[in-house]
Amino acid sequence: MVREVYKEASPSEFFYRNRQLAGFSNPSRALYTAIRELFENSLDACELHRIKPNILISLRHIESTSSNTAIYKLYIQDNGSGIPKEYVLDALGKIFFSSKYILRQSRGTFGLGGTMAILYAQATSGKPVKVVTSTGGKYIVSYVFQIDIDRNRPHVISQKTIRNNLKWRGTILELYLEGNYPHASRYIVSYFKHTAAITPYADITFIDPDGNLFYFPRTVGIMPEPPKETLPHPHGIDLETLKRMIKRSPKSMTISEFLMKNFHRVGKMIAKKFLRYAKIKGNLRLGEMDNTLIEKLYRAMKTFDGFISPSSDVLSPIGERIFKEGILKEFNPEYIDVVTRPPSSYEGHPFIIEAALVYGGSIPGSPGEIVLYRYANKIPLLFDEGSDVAAKVLNNINMNNYKRPMDKPTALFIHIASTKIPFKTVGKEAIADIPEIEKEIELAIRYLLRRFTTYTRKIERKIHAERRLRIFRKYLDLIGEFSAKIIDRDKPNIEVLLEKLEQRYRIDKIKES
Amino acid sequence: MVREVYKEASPSEFFYRNRQLAGFSNPSRALYTAIRELFENSLDACELHRIKPNILISLRHIESTSSNTAIYKLYIQDNGSGIPKEYVLDALGKIFFSSKYILRQSRGTFGLGGTMAILYAQATSGKPVKVVTSTGGKYIVSYVFQIDIDRNRPHVISQKTIRNNLKWRGTILELYLEGNYPHASRYIVSYFKHTAAITPYADITFIDPDGNLFYFPRTVGIMPEPPKETLPHPHGIDLETLKRMIKRSPKSMTISEFLMKNFHRVGKMIAKKFLRYAKIKGNLRLGEMDNTLIEKLYRAMKTFDGFISPSSDVLSPIGERIFKEGILKEFNPEYIDVVTRPPSSYEGHPFIIEAALVYGGSIPGSPGEIVLYRYANKIPLLFDEGSDVAAKVLNNINMNNYKRPMDKPTALFIHIASTKIPFKTVGKEAIADIPEIEKEIELAIRYLLRRFTTYTRKIERKIHAERRLRIFRKYLDLIGEFSAKIIDRDKPNIEVLLEKLEQRYRIDKIKES
Repeated sequence: MVREVYKEASPSEFFYRNRQLAGFSNPSRALYTAIRELFENSLDACELHRIKPNILISLRHIESTSSNTAIYKLYIQDNGSGIPKEYVLDALGKIFFSSKYILRQSRGTFGLGGTMAILYAQATSGKPVKVVTSTGGKYIVSYVFQIDIDRNRPHVISQKTIRNNLKWRGTILELYLEGNYPHASRYIVSYFKHTAAITPYADITFIDPDGNLFYFPRTVGIMPEPPKETLPHPHGIDLETLKRMIKRSPKSMTISEFLMKNFHRVGKMIAKKFLRYAKIKGNLRLGEMDNTLIEKLYRAMKTFDGFISPSSDVLSPIGERIFKEGILKEFNPEYIDVVTRPPSSYEGHPFIIEAALVYGGSIPGSPGEIVLYRYANKIPLLFDEGSDVAAKVLNNINMNNYKRPMDKPTALFIHIASTKIPFKTVGKEAIADIPEIEKEIELAIRYLLRRFTTYTRKIERKIHAERRLRIFRKYLDLIGEFSAKIIDRDKPNIEVLLEKLEQRYRIDKIKES
Repeated sequence: MVREVYKEASPSEFFYRNRQLAGFSNPSRALYTAIRELFENSLDACELHRIKPNILISLRHIESTSSNTAIYKLYIQDNGSGIPKEYVLDALGKIFFSSKYILRQSRGTFGLGGTMAILYAQATSGKPVKVVTSTGGKYIVSYVFQIDIDRNRPHVISQKTIRNNLKWRGTILELYLEGNYPHASRYIVSYFKHTAAITPYADITFIDPDGNLFYFPRTVGIMPEPPKETLPHPHGIDLETLKRMIKRSPKSMTISEFLMKNFHRVGKMIAKKFLRYAKIKGNLRLGEMDNTLIEKLYRAMKTFDGFISPSSDVLSPIGERIFKEGILKEFNPEYIDVVTRPPSSYEGHPFIIEAALVYGGSIPGSPGEIVLYRYANKIPLLFDEGSDVAAKVLNNINMNNYKRPMDKPTALFIHIASTKIPFKTVGKEAIADIPEIEKEIELAIRYLLRRFTTYTRKIERKIHAERRLRIFRKYLDLIGEFSAKIIDRDKPNIEVLLEKLEQRYRIDKIKES
C-alpha cells in the first residue's frame, strides 16, 4: 500500500501554484490581470482618499521568449495615498496581508491581486520588483524585493530612504514579467477605455510596448463621495463570526452595548426591541453567555424583522452625472439614458445598481445587437460574461416587448456598487446570481428599455412624418396649381398648409427632446 | 485623509470569509459541495490504495432554521486507507495542509475541500466535528474538534484511542451543518448517479433526510490501476520553481544528476543532449550556479525539443470496459460507444480524454437533444457547464454534418484524467479552454459522432426497408393473384420473393450488429 504524503503549503505557494484561480492562467491573460490588479490598487489608493487619480502605466518590451511572448517591464505610477513605510513590504510581498480586509466598498476585494502580480512577475522573469512610495510626509521609501514563496514573506534585496522635499505622494511599481502583448492588447486597451467611461474624473495614460500612447483625459472636476467603512448588518452575520466577535469583546460588556457597538444601524431602541424579541436580558454580560445562549441570540438575529435595512450612505455609486459624462466622452452616443435604482441589500450587504442605455456613436457591435458592459465597484468585467448575473437577466427579458432602432448597436452599462460583491472567482470576472441583485438589475434594464421604446417610437413617428411631408411638398404644389386652374383661382399658399402639418406631427418638438 | 487599515488574514479566515469561492455560496449549494468534497476524499482514500470503495453517506434532519433550510447531521463512512494519527487533525483542521500537494492524479486538487466543509459546518451549526479513523493498525483514533479560524489550526475538544481488534480500516466523519435539502436534493442524487456511472467498482449508499435509500451497487470486480506520483516534466516548470528546486538540492550535486533526479523522463542520454544544447557543462555543481546561469538553463528547458513527452503511465483513466459497464448499469441505453484518445499533454502535464456516446435508455432530456456529462479525474461536474471547455467544443461542432435519431436524447460523456486539471475555480466546476485539451475533446466527439452517424443510417435504412417490405407484403399478394388470373396460371409463391428482398436489405444483419 502506498503511504500518503501530507504536506503544508504556504499561502504564497498555494496561490502561486494555482495562479489560474486569480486570473494568471497564460501569458496573455496574466499580463492583462497584472496590469488590471495594479491599476485598480492605484485607483483605490486615490479615490478612497478623495484624490483625483493621475495614473501612468507603461509597458516596455525587454526580450522575446517565443514568437508571441516576451519579458516586459511594467511601470505604474499613481498619485494616491501612498503606503506607510511599516506596511509596504507586507502589503505587497505577503499573501493575506492587505488593506482590503475591512467592510468597505473598494475595487480590491480579496487583497490578493497586487501580491499575485508580483509573484507571477518574479516566477516568469526571475527579477525582483521595485517599489517607491510616500504618503506625502518627510521621506520617500524605496525597496527592491522578492517574495520568499516558501515562507510567504518579502525578502529585501536593497532599500533606500530619501528626503521628500517636493512633498510627493503616491506609489511607483516597476516589475518584469512574461506576457503576450500581441494577444492581450485589445483586452488591455478595452479595459482602460471602459474604466475611463465611468471615471471621467481620472487622468489615465497608457504607453504600450509599440510606443502607442492611449490617453484618457480628465473631463469632469467632481468625483464621487468616497465609500465609508461600515459595521456588519445583523442579517449579514453567521454564528461563527458572532462567536468570534463576542470572544474578542470585553467580558464585562453588556449584550446591549455589544449589539450597539458592533452592528450597523443598531441603536438603543432597536437593541431593546430586539432583545425583548430574543428573550435575552439587555444587561447580561458577555462573560456570562454560554454557547447555547449565543446560538439563541444568533437564531433571533436571523428571524427578527425589526432591524433597519443597511444604509447605502457607506456606498460610493458613480452618480448619474459622472456616469453620463464618462460615457459621452468615450462613446459619443446619439442617445443616452441613465438610471440609479434605490439602494437594496442582500444578506445584510447594501448594494446599488446603476445602469445606462446608450445608442449610436462609437459603440462597437453589429446593427440591432445589444452589447452588455458590466461593472462592479467601478471596475469593468470583460471576461466570463456567460456566467454573470447581468447576462442572465438580459437573456430572460423578452425583447419583443420593446422597440429599438435596428440600424446600429445598443449598449447597456450595468454597475453594481456594494460593500461585498458576490464574485464567483478570485479573478473577479462574473457575479453570482443573487435573487435581490437579479431583481434590481432587471428593474433597471426594463426601465431603460421602456424609455428607449418611447424614444424609438417618437423617432419612427418623426421619420414617418418627414416622409409624409416630403410627399405632400412634392404633390401639394401641383395639386394646388391644378385645382386653382379648374376653379379659375390663384394658386393657394401651400407653405401655410405644410407648416400646420409640421406642427401637427411636432417634428421640431421631437428634435428638441 | 482616511488612514488605511492593514490587516493579516489567516488562510482559514480568508477562505471562510470568501467561502463562495470554494462552492459554499448558499445553503443549497453548500450542502451539495460539503457532501461532494467529503465523498471525493473517501473515494480517493480507497482508489489511490487499490481498495474497492464501500461508502455510506447519510443525512439526517436535526432542526429547521427556516421554511427550507435546516441543520442536518452528515455522516460519511469509508473503507479507505484511513488517516495516520499524526496527520488527522492537521489534514482536516488546517487550510493548506493536505495529502494532495504532490504531482498525482486525484479527485482532490486544492487540498481545501474537506477542511472547507468542516469550516462551513462549524460556522453554520456552531457544533464541533467528530472523526474516527484507522489505517488498519492496532488502534482506532477518534477526535472531536473545532477549527480555530484566527490561528488556522484545529482545537481538540476530546479524543479517544481504542484497540482495533477487528482490524477495521477507514474513516468516519460526523458533522452538523446548515443546508437546504429540498432544493439541493436533485443535484446531490444526480451527483451520486453520475459518479456511480463511472465507478461501477464502488458500492455507494446514500440515505437522505426523508429516509429514502439510494443504493448504487458494485457491478464489476475490477478497478482501474491507481495513478502514480510523478516528477515534473521539464516543459511544465517555471523559473521560480526551478530556482527553488536547485536551492533545495545539495550544493555538491552536478547539474546532470539534478536533471535526472528531479524531472520526469530525463535519463542520462537526454540530460547529456540537453546540456549540450543549453551549452552548460554536465559536471557543473549546483553550488556554482548563479542566477544568470539558472535563467540560461531555464530558457533552454523551454525551447529544447528533445525531451520525451510526459508518460501517461502515471494516469489512471477509467478504461473502456469499466466506462461501458458503469453507463450500462446506470442508464441502460440502446446504443453505447466508447473511445479512449491517445495520451497527450499540455504545459508538461499529461492527460487522457475518454468519451462515450450514449443513446436511449434512461438518459433524461428532450428528443433530439444532446446532453453533456462532464467528468474530471473521475468526478462529475454538474455546474457552470457554460464556461467549460467541453461545452465550447460541442457548440463549435456543426451538427448538420452528422446524423442521429431525433426521437430520444443522445448523451455525450467526456472524461479527462490528468495530473493537473486546469479548473477555473476552487469549486472545481469548469475546465479552462487549453488548446491541447480542446483538440483532444473535439477529436473524441467527432469520432463518436461519425460512428453514430453510420449507426443512424443503418437504423434508418432498416426502418425504410421494413416499411417497404410491409408495403410489398400488403400488395404483392393481390398483384400476384391478379396477374395469375389474367394469364390463367396458379398464384405464385410470394414468400420466396419477400425473403429475397429481406435478404437484400439485410434487416436481420442490421439487427445483429
